[in-house]
Amino acid sequence: MTTTPDEAVERAADELTRTVLASFDGAPERLRTLARGLVSHLHAFVRENDVTDEEWRYAIGFLTRTGHITSDVRQEFILLSDVLGVSSLVDVLGNARAAGATPSAVLGPFYVEGPPELPQGADISGGLDGEPVLADVTITDTAGVPVADAVVDVWQANKDGYYDVQLPDQEGPVLRGRLRTDAGGRLRFWTILPAPYPIPDDGPVGELLAAAGRHSMRAPHLHFMIAAPGRRTLVTQLFVEGGDYLDSDAVFGVKEPIIVPFSEQDDPAPDGRPGPWRRVEFTFRLA
Amino acid sequence: MTTTPDEAVERAADELTRTVLASFDGAPERLRTLARGLVSHLHAFVRENDVTDEEWRYAIGFLTRTGHITSDVRQEFILLSDVLGVSSLVDVLGNARAAGATPSAVLGPFYVEGPPELPQGADISGGLDGEPVLADVTITDTAGVPVADAVVDVWQANKDGYYDVQLPDQEGPVLRGRLRTDAGGRLRFWTILPAPYPIPDDGPVGELLAAAGRHSMRAPHLHFMIAAPGRRTLVTQLFVEGGDYLDSDAVFGVKEPIIVPFSEQDDPAPDGRPGPWRRVEFTFRLA
Repeated sequence: MTTTPDEAVERAADELTRTVLASFDGAPERLRTLARGLVSHLHAFVRENDVTDEEWRYAIGFLTRTGHITSDVRQEFILLSDVLGVSSLVDVLGNARAAGATPSAVLGPFYVEGPPELPQGADISGGLDGEPVLADVTITDTAGVPVADAVVDVWQANKDGYYDVQLPDQEGPVLRGRLRTDAGGRLRFWTILPAPYPIPDDGPVGELLAAAGRHSMRAPHLHFMIAAPGRRTLVTQLFVEGGDYLDSDAVFGVKEPIIVPFSEQDDPAPDGRPGPWRRVEFTFRLA
Repeated sequence: MTTTPDEAVERAADELTRTVLASFDGAPERLRTLARGLVSHLHAFVRENDVTDEEWRYAIGFLTRTGHITSDVRQEFILLSDVLGVSSLVDVLGNARAAGATPSAVLGPFYVEGPPELPQGADISGGLDGEPVLADVTITDTAGVPVADAVVDVWQANKDGYYDVQLPDQEGPVLRGRLRTDAGGRLRFWTILPAPYPIPDDGPVGELLAAAGRHSMRAPHLHFMIAAPGRRTLVTQLFVEGGDYLDSDAVFGVKEPIIVPFSEQDDPAPDGRPGPWRRVEFTFRLA
């Protein structure tokens, strides 16, 4: 029996993959499962695409640059995971473990621990320019029972698409805060309409998007992190219905149930402020 | 028709994967192919293993630490690729493009550009302790025609498993050099028997190996990089037949055709040196 070079390569590659898989035989169960799964898929990817040494070197260099740009204030690996849809996929699977709850969404890179404590009805905009929005949200469990005294962290971009931490002249936090629901599980606060914004695109992930002809914009949204004793903490976002990029969010974060109207109101604002304003209402269900 | 939560999750995940794949529709052909292949396999890995948010965060942290320990003198991503068998797989596929040539093997992290130029017959051991080895190699093309004046870089670990760059008291290069074949394509040089050694195991890759119950040892070998005008440069290794770890090399670098005897000799050494010595003979075929 003769062997063609192709058969010999297939056989050598099969043998190599088997050997690598077997090297994890002694690992604890979950690590063994994950390592074997990762090796199987990585090897299949390399073989199916006949990845060259030059391409492999490029990938090593790309990962190295991704590591080197990552710091305490910038997480390029999360961004990479985001633009490949992996963060969102992990999120979708996590939601499956919280049946009946509001879908979660990615945390993103702009959450800051320990936001300022604010009272019911507060205005988190700190006087920044923008279209006023009254957020009127209710927190319940999956059966619809209101959750009193839930801790609700909110944060968002301004009318130009920047978070406070990106504004060179901004002193202290703005467009972010920690509020609590009342006895009826309800929370109201004033803010401004958030704008779409680009994810950081001056690093390796930006290169990848540019090379692929993809834009780096996120659809406009408010971030929420909602915690209550005995409940699963919910990290999610509310997307502005009709906003740009809902169909092409750079990090695949948009989900139908959390696209909501930020409706223009004809009535006078309840706090008596002049001019146009919008209202967003939503009920979050915690698992 | 009702939908179970499982079906809803499957559908949401399918839809997400499709959207991410489609986001690369506008990329140049090779990037599109590779990006779609990578996304398909990464998503399949996450779904098949129901990867949790906690595991995903661990992976992000692992990659971040791998990036941060990588420097000009340490390449932890290559090491990670090595211990997952990916480097060796890329190498196997590359060999397929060089039919009839000697199998290549990974470069490894200890090659240093511009090794010292040495004459035929030189002793590269610099007087270091160890069992003397006379290497007698011939370079030919795939038809067996000798290649004269081929540039042959050799490098290796000492009898304790260390390369010169790892020895704190070693001044200048030793156990490495650049030699040239004679008119008959032949090259002889003296060295010492290399020992097995551990890959760097004080970083994330070492953690992975320890967690999986894998050792970090490489089977003993000599490195070769062989270049000649009009030929494909061959980067390979010769493994010491009968050496330790041939069956469990930490980076899966061992290939049957490049395991060779380093035979103990009964005759007096050709250069008249006293005591026991070994001889290794090999013919490298360049594509």
